[in-house]
Amino acid sequence: MAELSEGIEQTLEAAKTASKVVALLPDAARRQLLRQMASALRGATEQLLAANAGDVAALPEADPRRDRLFLTPERIEAIAASAEVVAALPDVLWETLEARTMPSGIRLRRVRVPLGVVACIYEARPNVTADIAGLCLRTGNAAVLKGGKEAARSNAAIADVITGVLRAEGLPEAAVTLLPSTHEASQALMMAEGLVDVLIPRGSARLIRAVREQARVPVIETGAGVCHTYVHEDAEIALAARVIANAKMRRVSVCNALDCVLVHRALEPQLEALLAPCRAAGAQVHTAPEDWGREWLSPNLSVRVVDSLDAALAHIARFGSGHSEAILTQSPEVAARFQREVDAACVYVNTSTAFTDGGEFGLGAEVGISTQKLHARGPMGLMALTTYKWLIESHGAIRSR
Amino acid sequence: MAELSEGIEQTLEAAKTASKVVALLPDAARRQLLRQMASALRGATEQLLAANAGDVAALPEADPRRDRLFLTPERIEAIAASAEVVAALPDVLWETLEARTMPSGIRLRRVRVPLGVVACIYEARPNVTADIAGLCLRTGNAAVLKGGKEAARSNAAIADVITGVLRAEGLPEAAVTLLPSTHEASQALMMAEGLVDVLIPRGSARLIRAVREQARVPVIETGAGVCHTYVHEDAEIALAARVIANAKMRRVSVCNALDCVLVHRALEPQLEALLAPCRAAGAQVHTAPEDWGREWLSPNLSVRVVDSLDAALAHIARFGSGHSEAILTQSPEVAARFQREVDAACVYVNTSTAFTDGGEFGLGAEVGISTQKLHARGPMGLMALTTYKWLIESHGAIRSR
Repeated sequence: MAELSEGIEQTLEAAKTASKVVALLPDAARRQLLRQMASALRGATEQLLAANAGDVAALPEADPRRDRLFLTPERIEAIAASAEVVAALPDVLWETLEARTMPSGIRLRRVRVPLGVVACIYEARPNVTADIAGLCLRTGNAAVLKGGKEAARSNAAIADVITGVLRAEGLPEAAVTLLPSTHEASQALMMAEGLVDVLIPRGSARLIRAVREQARVPVIETGAGVCHTYVHEDAEIALAARVIANAKMRRVSVCNALDCVLVHRALEPQLEALLAPCRAAGAQVHTAPEDWGREWLSPNLSVRVVDSLDAALAHIARFGSGHSEAILTQSPEVAARFQREVDAACVYVNTSTAFTDGGEFGLGAEVGISTQKLHARGPMGLMALTTYKWLIESHGAIRSR
Repeated sequence: MAELSEGIEQTLEAAKTASKVVALLPDAARRQLLRQMASALRGATEQLLAANAGDVAALPEADPRRDRLFLTPERIEAIAASAEVVAALPDVLWETLEARTMPSGIRLRRVRVPLGVVACIYEARPNVTADIAGLCLRTGNAAVLKGGKEAARSNAAIADVITGVLRAEGLPEAAVTLLPSTHEASQALMMAEGLVDVLIPRGSARLIRAVREQARVPVIETGAGVCHTYVHEDAEIALAARVIANAKMRRVSVCNALDCVLVHRALEPQLEALLAPCRAAGAQVHTAPEDWGREWLSPNLSVRVVDSLDAALAHIARFGSGHSEAILTQSPEVAARFQREVDAACVYVNTSTAFTDGGEFGLGAEVGISTQKLHARGPMGLMALTTYKWLIESHGAIRSR
């Protein structure tokens, strides 16, 4: 820990100590905390808007982050309402996942417990501050947050409201810690072995890459989605055209948005019919091989004609990011093979990839969408913020072998 | 991937391709593979002993790694028998973990699948080569192995036997790949983003630390165990003395071995009675504060007198490694508080920490003992080598909001 400045090390030690307090709160107290948070955020609407106005004014008019940064009374209400939704979700802590008595006489229970200190590095969206704090408190974790510089005033105002609630409830304010929006704070989080139990980067591919390369603490990667939809030769054309248009154009800036359509050669004559609704909604079609594997995040779409299901599978294995992949086919056997062989978090049959989302999957709330395979894959709900421990009891059992 | 030499990159690409083949093998074929492996290892006893003799001869007489490295006909039989045990374990793949139909009309299933390419860096024990290869094949994963230089001939001989079995079964040999025992191979594994799905370091604290600091691929840390046993004021002295002696002296070189006894001040007069069986078995007692937090891996034991349960909890929070911690008490309330508050993989009541082991926990086989909180905690069985994916179906569902 020699790398951490003393100030940040103390801050993280305080978060760790606070995590032990929130971990032991009963379900009712954790729910209540989220409800208080919702009502305090509503009550602070004026202050939040004032702080946010300062952030927005500091950005150039044309900066694309302006929209993500901007708070309105409606957006603040949505943030508060979301905390209430999380408050109402069933508790996930202390559930017994398995239990057995072994021939040695030891009684084993595996129970679900909080992770401890959950850190998040994110960019210009101030709602993430409230969302992650709420999800962490609901699951008995402490949250350490490091938002973008552009949102510094908004984030500080939101964090102030939350620490005010913690104080009023007699809980340590360090249970939700907003770090300064500096490069040093990010570095400290990545190096904080033994103090940060998981670090979740949320934002650009560049941010996620930097965290992957530098972090010494456990990381859950989120976000990057190069998503394909393969149209098999037997697909229903009208259904396929509708699904493609939805997957591409519902919201072009999100990670589950379609990036590349693979079309079986037998359907080449119907290519225009397949793409018509998508084009009508404003999509630009690209066919250059240089664009394969590109995450567009814009109304652009790669299209490639392939010779077979095998060729489609090979393309996805090479260019996909393991996020969301789809097949459109009338054959259950072909669909089953696609679902078995594609190595991705979410594998769809005759369905728009736009459904990759915690809410749509029935998880209640979403921490992010994991693109890694360890611990959590795809949309992450509250359970992704937990781990387990083994509890073992006996009356003096000793091991003989 | 610019950092990887072309040769190693090709090797890892081949492992990835092979992983897709073994992932799709039915349960019976994976079982059969393990049984063939066992019988081929037995059949190759002479070659394995000859190769091993070369490794052993190259080590100085007094090298402590000699014992771990040494193969005998009995040890080879044990390795083969262990593969047969793993063959007989129930399959963990393709189980449906949850399934539901959402109001949107999408049908969701979350199913268990292999991780893909599992890499392991380990030291002088040649049995790890066969063990990890077997566990990976049983769970439909490819294994990439990098053993210690001292065991290079033994590991190569074991790997040859296994790739011979793969070849005979018509499977890609790259499903089990032994890398050269070089520093470059370790570096390549740590940097192999997109090619290695998890990297498991097994061995010294130094090795594990190096992997944590350098790896860009997901890692499961194993091994380091600074284990405490706290004797509360109401503990049964005879039971406590027996449990302490077992936890410390059953096998001193393993990670679950006891390192530090914390004794409530009220029991100070009984200190010698508590430690007598341990001393009789050869333990050396240390009381210097410099030794707190030390993993002994030898017949040494730290002892500290503490004023209260709170003091014991604080000591464990500060000096424990989150592996195995125990309390000895007659009070169910005190025991429950200890189990709730101690943040460790395994938390024991009136039981020897020596039980932290996959076999003793009923997991059938053990991949290692995880000391991290993500993905797997404590003894890891076959399930730790799996992830899941979401399979989603509908007849053309599109997302409206």
